[in-house]
Amino acid sequence: MVKLRVKNVLIRECMAEFIGTFVLLMFGCSAAAQVKTSRETRGQFLSVNMAFSVGVMSAMYLTMGVTGAHLNPAVSLSFCVLRKVSWTRLLPYSLSQVLGAYVASGLVYLVYYEAIMEFSGGVLTVYGPNETASIFATYPTEYISLSRSFLDQVVGTAMLLLCILCLGEKRNTPAPPGLIPPIVGTIVLGIGMSMSANCGGAINPARDLGPRLFTLTAGWGVEVFTCYNYWFWVPLVAPMIGAIVGAMTYLVFIEWQLPDPNPHLDLSIPPTPTKDCKELQAATGNGVELKMAYF
Amino acid sequence: MVKLRVKNVLIRECMAEFIGTFVLLMFGCSAAAQVKTSRETRGQFLSVNMAFSVGVMSAMYLTMGVTGAHLNPAVSLSFCVLRKVSWTRLLPYSLSQVLGAYVASGLVYLVYYEAIMEFSGGVLTVYGPNETASIFATYPTEYISLSRSFLDQVVGTAMLLLCILCLGEKRNTPAPPGLIPPIVGTIVLGIGMSMSANCGGAINPARDLGPRLFTLTAGWGVEVFTCYNYWFWVPLVAPMIGAIVGAMTYLVFIEWQLPDPNPHLDLSIPPTPTKDCKELQAATGNGVELKMAYF
Amino acid sequence: MVKLRVKNVLIRECMAEFIGTFVLLMFGCSAAAQVKTSRETRGQFLSVNMAFSVGVMSAMYLTMGVTGAHLNPAVSLSFCVLRKVSWTRLLPYSLSQVLGAYVASGLVYLVYYEAIMEFSGGVLTVYGPNETASIFATYPTEYISLSRSFLDQVVGTAMLLLCILCLGEKRNTPAPPGLIPPIVGTIVLGIGMSMSANCGGAINPARDLGPRLFTLTAGWGVEVFTCYNYWFWVPLVAPMIGAIVGAMTYLVFIEWQLPDPNPHLDLSIPPTPTKDCKELQAATGNGVELKMAYF
Amino acid sequence: MVKLRVKNVLIRECMAEFIGTFVLLMFGCSAAAQVKTSRETRGQFLSVNMAFSVGVMSAMYLTMGVTGAHLNPAVSLSFCVLRKVSWTRLLPYSLSQVLGAYVASGLVYLVYYEAIMEFSGGVLTVYGPNETASIFATYPTEYISLSRSFLDQVVGTAMLLLCILCLGEKRNTPAPPGLIPPIVGTIVLGIGMSMSANCGGAINPARDLGPRLFTLTAGWGVEVFTCYNYWFWVPLVAPMIGAIVGAMTYLVFIEWQLPDPNPHLDLSIPPTPTKDCKELQAATGNGVELKMAYF
Repeated sequence: MVKLRVKNVLIRECMAEFIGTFVLLMFGCSAAAQVKTSRETRGQFLSVNMAFSVGVMSAMYLTMGVTGAHLNPAVSLSFCVLRKVSWTRLLPYSLSQVLGAYVASGLVYLVYYEAIMEFSGGVLTVYGPNETASIFATYPTEYISLSRSFLDQVVGTAMLLLCILCLGEKRNTPAPPGLIPPIVGTIVLGIGMSMSANCGGAINPARDLGPRLFTLTAGWGVEVFTCYNYWFWVPLVAPMIGAIVGAMTYLVFIEWQLPDPNPHLDLSIPPTPTKDCKELQAATGNGVELKMAYF
Repeated sequence: MVKLRVKNVLIRECMAEFIGTFVLLMFGCSAAAQVKTSRETRGQFLSVNMAFSVGVMSAMYLTMGVTGAHLNPAVSLSFCVLRKVSWTRLLPYSLSQVLGAYVASGLVYLVYYEAIMEFSGGVLTVYGPNETASIFATYPTEYISLSRSFLDQVVGTAMLLLCILCLGEKRNTPAPPGLIPPIVGTIVLGIGMSMSANCGGAINPARDLGPRLFTLTAGWGVEVFTCYNYWFWVPLVAPMIGAIVGAMTYLVFIEWQLPDPNPHLDLSIPPTPTKDCKELQAATGNGVELKMAYF
Repeated sequence: MVKLRVKNVLIRECMAEFIGTFVLLMFGCSAAAQVKTSRETRGQFLSVNMAFSVGVMSAMYLTMGVTGAHLNPAVSLSFCVLRKVSWTRLLPYSLSQVLGAYVASGLVYLVYYEAIMEFSGGVLTVYGPNETASIFATYPTEYISLSRSFLDQVVGTAMLLLCILCLGEKRNTPAPPGLIPPIVGTIVLGIGMSMSANCGGAINPARDLGPRLFTLTAGWGVEVFTCYNYWFWVPLVAPMIGAIVGAMTYLVFIEWQLPDPNPHLDLSIPPTPTKDCKELQAATGNGVELKMAYF
Repeated sequence: MVKLRVKNVLIRECMAEFIGTFVLLMFGCSAAAQVKTSRETRGQFLSVNMAFSVGVMSAMYLTMGVTGAHLNPAVSLSFCVLRKVSWTRLLPYSLSQVLGAYVASGLVYLVYYEAIMEFSGGVLTVYGPNETASIFATYPTEYISLSRSFLDQVVGTAMLLLCILCLGEKRNTPAPPGLIPPIVGTIVLGIGMSMSANCGGAINPARDLGPRLFTLTAGWGVEVFTCYNYWFWVPLVAPMIGAIVGAMTYLVFIEWQLPDPNPHLDLSIPPTPTKDCKELQAATGNGVELKMAYF
């Protein structure tokens, strides 16, 4: 099957980010559609949080060995700042993520078309009890101020980065590499249960922009961008800042305070890697060389 | 106990698929009975999703070392297409799965007989607020069109295959083999929470046909097949197509794009397997030779 | 601290079964008290299932290295039948389990005394909307027949044994030994979500008898035994039969059909255990010699 | 980055305890704010329990390699009594934990300021249907007596210690070191679901005092300390006693009854650690030398 492989490495990576973000949004937005259009008879707010969490887990298993499973421009930016990923990756990855989110939104709309029409009475709108725009993109609650929602997104994304950056650090207590996807999924579940009341908890510009663009083109109209005084830019900009704040907090409080790596324990450049050892690494499933940009 | 072993390998495998699908349906349909007949006082929609997820996990631990834990004709078909399983397995496995689902439905009916009679007022029906047919097989919501429900089942099953095929791929980030059952269970939970509002989320012809046949024979009558304009064929045919779509999507976006396997890391045919290494494989529980058709 | 060790091995084991069952019931009955006395404002039916599941996990981590974590006379009986545990253990273990459940019930009563009095209006009763007996022992729903509830407990316990006996089998796909407690906990959660509507899902004579004896002595009166026509014997006898049915089903469908163990992969009596290997076993946490009666 | 490391070891450890407790409270109190101010439309009681559980997991991954992840003065005290941690650590750790909880409370208040004002009508109070003080600190239910709530906190904290102390014991069935954070998180979830109805389930003086101090300074007034007849001291004192009770129960029933360690299996002081073995320890992620005060 080698012949079917795309030659360009960057395109291969972008394909992974595309399909990963697609999977993330398929789970998340479908769950939002299921809960809203069934008027909470086939799920509840918690099950939307849980579905996004399953989406993160599944998307990470799909893409972690290819790109490190960014799935989020804020995460990509953070890795660029931390010099774990080349800056040349930022734009292509981000566009692939937005595209994956857009396509997933379209498929969710196709699958739930009649349910959405039944629920909304055929009027696709951003406001009111029959609004369906929030199935796709995020919107603020009515009482919240602009600066508050901006802070909300900074804090939520900072929590994400603060909590995931430690998971692969060998000088700390690393999670088993093969179980990092469910652990990150659990952290995202935690953020959804605790920091999504103000404005939907996007903490991911691609997760928000892709679906918003889709609703623009699918009949909800320009209101998806103009509503709440052009609020749409908040989940695009604030998570980028939050990711850097979270990464810096992690560096200051944990990473820089960890002991020096013990060269005898460091396998990344083993002085004389014995074959037995290498094989065992593979056998135990922990030593497989991953493109662990995350960690 | 070797004397008690069934000599024919195929029959042994069919016994495993039978008991595995039996366990899957025992958890899932019992939970549906518990939630419906208690009028949601002893559980809720989410707990039915969770029970199916536990059923998947348990059935996989029981059968993974024997058949690779298909439990679903759509999965079997997909593995045949991917040449991981011989085409001669498809029909016997599928029949065993349907039979396991049928027998489980019968036992659920026996255990919940009085609860079902109490809830339904003794009238076993497919329609209305006291219907009990949906405890067993899946039925569409009233507003959904045939083509929409077909698409729904294609997409749901495609998501299943797309997300599980990567879990054992050593060139990616594989899940620990001994933890693949709960991870697949979690993916099935995610699909149940997000893609079951339209028509019950069967994504498995055996899970649907077995219980439907049981209700036909147990008093619900031919309506279980004729209702909604003979809708029953959708969860039989659409998942088969969806499984292939999902497998192809996985191949195109991920599998074919992965790097060549590193022979030094490949233990499946180790050039000179040292005894130490073999023992360690066993000790770490990761090197046990599995019939990993799934992966 | 060796001086403080109890000399008699059997007493040490009984202490473990006592404290393990105590922990199981502390989580489970406290959750039942929290949900009932708060009138579901501080939890719901699902959270009681989940608390029992956490109790199973915690009790197993505490006791698995000592006794194999039976925590249930039906499990002990099953292991005696399977010759994994000596028949001389059955009675002492069972009594320790009942005692642990009794003491836990007493402590739950002490902790929730005012909540129970507030909820019940001070009248400790088995019937009616203000009954509080079901916080402790299990009771059948009103419409269920004796034989149905007996079948319910046989099936529930058979599912438990069928699903857990495979978890440590090296010829199948074994779960990581250090993660068997949460997996068994998840299976118990599944049974609680799907097979507890008819009569509370005891599937464990000690979990039922200990609390029932406590309520007898604490003011609920003899009704806890006489109610529903002396129903109390069902969760004592039926699980014992169910455990054997489940174990037999497992043997017939899976265990006897597995391939012969490969002696080269068998580490239990390694011909020449190298020290390196032994150390690694310890290091990987998978080779620690466990008294794995469960598995 | 070595230049940016704080030279004083104790300060480095206090920084870790600070940020860990900050993360724990950020998840927990944010979830409490989300559920209360949305009037349970964006979550429920269970999701607050789950968010605290995610907080424990995340905080442990961040800090386990630095301090052993106490995050709780009662846990620190218990480790001092067990001589796993120097008594000189108790006060600095505890103060860092309280400070982390205080700062997190402040940030939760900032993020949910408008939501809290909307919910409370602008009146920050401890009593009544619009009270918001319980978003931060814990308060007893109205019917509970002082001694009952004291017992409640002793029992809850004792259960915590009883269940976590066994997780790293190599002579028992230890949990995989890299998965202890989610397991402890699950135990905390279990306590929240079963032992938080009486008085909020603090089981952690820092988790309670930090937020209470914050509400004192942020406008709720001295009532947060004076209410319920100066009840605030209960979650400060009772958990300290409960932790010791739990640790003693563990020692008596399990730890002292375990077999002597097998020196051949003991890697902590390996007689002649081969380099291969060391490397493998690192590769398997289980042998990394942790400051495992917890275990």
